[in-house]
Amino acid sequence: MAAAMQPSQLLIIDLLRHGVRRHPQQEVVSRRIEGDIHRYTYQDCYARTCQLAHALDELQIKPGERVATLAWNTYRHLELYYAVSGIGAVLHTVNPRLLAEQIAWIMQDADAQWLFVDACFAELANAVVAQLPNLKGVVVLAESKQQPALAEVATPLYAYEPFIADQPTTYTWPALHEDTAALLCYTSGTTGHPKGVLSSHRAMVLHAQATASAELLDLRANTVLMPMVAMYHAGAWGAPYAAPLAGAKLVLPGSGMSGADMHELITKEHVNVGLGVPTIWLTLHNHLSEKSLNVPSLERVCVGGAASPLGLVKTFDQQYDVYWQPIWGMTETGPLACSAPPEPSLMALPTEQRYRIQTTAGRACFGVDMQIVNADGEPQPHDGETSGELRVRGPWIASSYFQRDDPDTFAEGWLATGDIAVIDAQGYMKVVDRKKDVIKSGGEWISSLDIENICSQHPAVNESCVIGVKHPKWDERPLLLVVPNKGHQLDKATLYEFLQGKIAKWWMPDDILIVTELPHTGTGKLVKNELRKHYQNYLIESQDAN
Amino acid sequence: MAAAMQPSQLLIIDLLRHGVRRHPQQEVVSRRIEGDIHRYTYQDCYARTCQLAHALDELQIKPGERVATLAWNTYRHLELYYAVSGIGAVLHTVNPRLLAEQIAWIMQDADAQWLFVDACFAELANAVVAQLPNLKGVVVLAESKQQPALAEVATPLYAYEPFIADQPTTYTWPALHEDTAALLCYTSGTTGHPKGVLSSHRAMVLHAQATASAELLDLRANTVLMPMVAMYHAGAWGAPYAAPLAGAKLVLPGSGMSGADMHELITKEHVNVGLGVPTIWLTLHNHLSEKSLNVPSLERVCVGGAASPLGLVKTFDQQYDVYWQPIWGMTETGPLACSAPPEPSLMALPTEQRYRIQTTAGRACFGVDMQIVNADGEPQPHDGETSGELRVRGPWIASSYFQRDDPDTFAEGWLATGDIAVIDAQGYMKVVDRKKDVIKSGGEWISSLDIENICSQHPAVNESCVIGVKHPKWDERPLLLVVPNKGHQLDKATLYEFLQGKIAKWWMPDDILIVTELPHTGTGKLVKNELRKHYQNYLIESQDAN
Ligand SMILES: Nc1ncnc2c1ncn2[C@@H]1O[C@H](COP(=O)(O)O)[C@@H](O)[C@H]1O
Repeated sequence: MAAAMQPSQLLIIDLLRHGVRRHPQQEVVSRRIEGDIHRYTYQDCYARTCQLAHALDELQIKPGERVATLAWNTYRHLELYYAVSGIGAVLHTVNPRLLAEQIAWIMQDADAQWLFVDACFAELANAVVAQLPNLKGVVVLAESKQQPALAEVATPLYAYEPFIADQPTTYTWPALHEDTAALLCYTSGTTGHPKGVLSSHRAMVLHAQATASAELLDLRANTVLMPMVAMYHAGAWGAPYAAPLAGAKLVLPGSGMSGADMHELITKEHVNVGLGVPTIWLTLHNHLSEKSLNVPSLERVCVGGAASPLGLVKTFDQQYDVYWQPIWGMTETGPLACSAPPEPSLMALPTEQRYRIQTTAGRACFGVDMQIVNADGEPQPHDGETSGELRVRGPWIASSYFQRDDPDTFAEGWLATGDIAVIDAQGYMKVVDRKKDVIKSGGEWISSLDIENICSQHPAVNESCVIGVKHPKWDERPLLLVVPNKGHQLDKATLYEFLQGKIAKWWMPDDILIVTELPHTGTGKLVKNELRKHYQNYLIESQDAN
Repeated sequence: MAAAMQPSQLLIIDLLRHGVRRHPQQEVVSRRIEGDIHRYTYQDCYARTCQLAHALDELQIKPGERVATLAWNTYRHLELYYAVSGIGAVLHTVNPRLLAEQIAWIMQDADAQWLFVDACFAELANAVVAQLPNLKGVVVLAESKQQPALAEVATPLYAYEPFIADQPTTYTWPALHEDTAALLCYTSGTTGHPKGVLSSHRAMVLHAQATASAELLDLRANTVLMPMVAMYHAGAWGAPYAAPLAGAKLVLPGSGMSGADMHELITKEHVNVGLGVPTIWLTLHNHLSEKSLNVPSLERVCVGGAASPLGLVKTFDQQYDVYWQPIWGMTETGPLACSAPPEPSLMALPTEQRYRIQTTAGRACFGVDMQIVNADGEPQPHDGETSGELRVRGPWIASSYFQRDDPDTFAEGWLATGDIAVIDAQGYMKVVDRKKDVIKSGGEWISSLDIENICSQHPAVNESCVIGVKHPKWDERPLLLVVPNKGHQLDKATLYEFLQGKIAKWWMPDDILIVTELPHTGTGKLVKNELRKHYQNYLIESQDAN
């Protein structure tokens, strides 16, 4: 029997509207690409979001159409988050650190019709647009479209500010169904081509509520949240949605990822909660200790995207009195699914015991179910010892990739994460390995397969293998192992030269080893696990040796 | 375009399962009807809930079937909340303070098939059951069915403990759709017969998330919540659902509503958040001040169901250091929709200003939209002055009554609440009257509630009531009825003088009657209808007499 409740839908725009209704004067502070600090209120943000929605309507953007962005964390990107989804179109955030070819491939795959781009990416945009004959237009996130690098753009070109300037500051949002697509993020998280995760309004609203709750980020009206995770990466972990919901002040770092930039914003804006990968907090720590600085306002850093190292957990506690709050998630899972917030019962534990828990990935929040399964898909005990592939389930977790089948990943109603994990009796999960071979460097993916494919094109290469090995700063970096063809000579320098220009600079392997053979399974697949184990400390040791 | 998210449903049973997963050892403490204190953990609660589900299956209770309860706030009632909805049936909570005929009428209207009843209501149950020939059976919430008063029950009779005892302690819950009906509560909130509000799983889960959030009850793992609102009334304001979600300790008072009972539980169980109507906190205060006691653990009382009187707000702050947190809602709205939690910005205000806000009904939480409309249904400004009928909208708000049309209440996608309210620029809402109690004098509204509130501050006034009665010129004029405190003398002149300057001149009652008592409903509300009928011609006749 069905109940008689109002058919109210969970819609993204209502998160911002709620923020405005309850906290109209709460601030959004951005470090602009132009370099200066911009500040306005949720009320201002909403007025400009309405203006943007009208402007999008004038472009005749249709429901479901993909609107791509290549942009840093600023207020304009925030307005796009709300206006594009609000009118029923799909915000398609693209990673500007990829090569133009990769970006064009992704936008083609997504069938993106419009591109909104930060002025600093004008040159990149030019290269991308040249490969996308069907693109309807480009909007540069600036005061004027006089960006030299965009001179050759063939499609219509607009500048954001004049584009929205004369529009009305209120807007009647369409009554969408909550299952409507809202956000499209690509991930290179598994092998092969990047894959799109298409999230719904419902998923993002439920995710925002979980994110704001005490089980995840615990956002409140007196939180000052600085997301150091990019808005082009997994929706900045939902921060743009959860902050207005909770009435938190939002501090957007623009492209300023240096320790000095972070320290300045934290100090001036009284940031008390940070959000980002371990590398970013290591960067902050390096800066602070080098300059003998402190961050008294900072209470917590919420850290995901990679495992939390014990050393940093301790350093942040003992040196800065900052709680290192581990989180786990992936683009396919909202992304947030697990965390270990500083609950009173946790903080009451002996310090070393608490630190140990802070190096896990935390516990599942309400809405997310987890299990670990063996190779036959059988659930394993949560005893803190038995490991298995982590599977997750919940209302903001992907059920398939955009326009792409992947029965291995989406098995029996669960998402198979590719993370090998243990779960203990208290529900704390810890990633112990990765089933997939992709490398995560400073929170971003490097495809081992891509590099291997390029290597294999060199006439002297018989077989190659790229693995991620431990790195003190970037968490993981690629190491390339190559077996030369019989009778061929090969050296590092030749291979580095060969790779030059074919892959992004930050994808370049940290070292290249010429070997005589590589281990294979019975079916002829590379056994990367074994290699990873063997070489895991290779970069650390070779550094020590220097 | 639809997104590709997992079709996970929001189901009530998952709130308890989550509580068990994250806080297995958290306690549920009940004052049993038997008189003693019972305590167990969420883990125990879940095991018994599973046993109950199996037992319900043995009774062959079908999806959608109504299972009625006549019961106080105890762990057994809590198990019924989860097991009955969990198997896809509908928990139908009935108010045991009604007359047997009223209860039978409601259960007949609801077509309830089973009745679960506290032993203390055995006699009542007997009288009810005699009028319900189609009832399939009765389960008495006790160790044994040897309840003398139930000797004559014709239908099968079970005792709860043996009924569930030998069942397995795990259960495979059906994969329900989230729109499935879960909870049926009747309200006598408007004139005529009581009406049923049938809530869905989705509504109750979203309501629980809102309830646990900082905007409403702000429940956390270190909250010890004591709901003094009955589990037969509007789902105990969602406390049974929200507490396990947040991992809060739940203290259930059974039938113990006295000041001494409350004080004992608060002190022994370290209750920090209470939930209930103003009267209950007045009862507590009377007891504490009579015995010179205090409640050091108590931090907040969350108070709804009636307006928050300034006097009590102050007393609780100044005498007990307890924050009086107003909430607003009604059976048709989940019930929780508005509150004014002690946000830092509120607590930073000058005390008197803060007190004033604490006497409003608070601000809408995420999910709830509000508007006030005039007699023509036109939205009115939120200026803190213009009043209108309050309308609300949201995913846990009723769209119709159970099996009953009421186009006046369910207008244009909104619920017309029947409350006359103002909303200020900050979003704080204040109920100024009930629509049916408001007095229309010369086309303008006079708030009976406002006048009553002022009267109640006179030391000699025990209770007061203002009704609108016929007037030859103004259509309606206010008439004030007052019951003096025992041993106090009161006369018209004193009261007129007291009101002078405190209300607008044209609000001054046309006459004041000193009476010995006023009629009340079973739940303690004034029956103004009766008084209006009795006194409708009072002014006309007294004028004629002149
Ligand atoms: N707390 C964590 N511990 C270990 N690995 C993590 C953690 N959080 C995220 N990851 C890794 O990052 C992946 C998700 O990456 P992405 O989709 O880019 O957000 C996961 O599948 C994990 O491999």
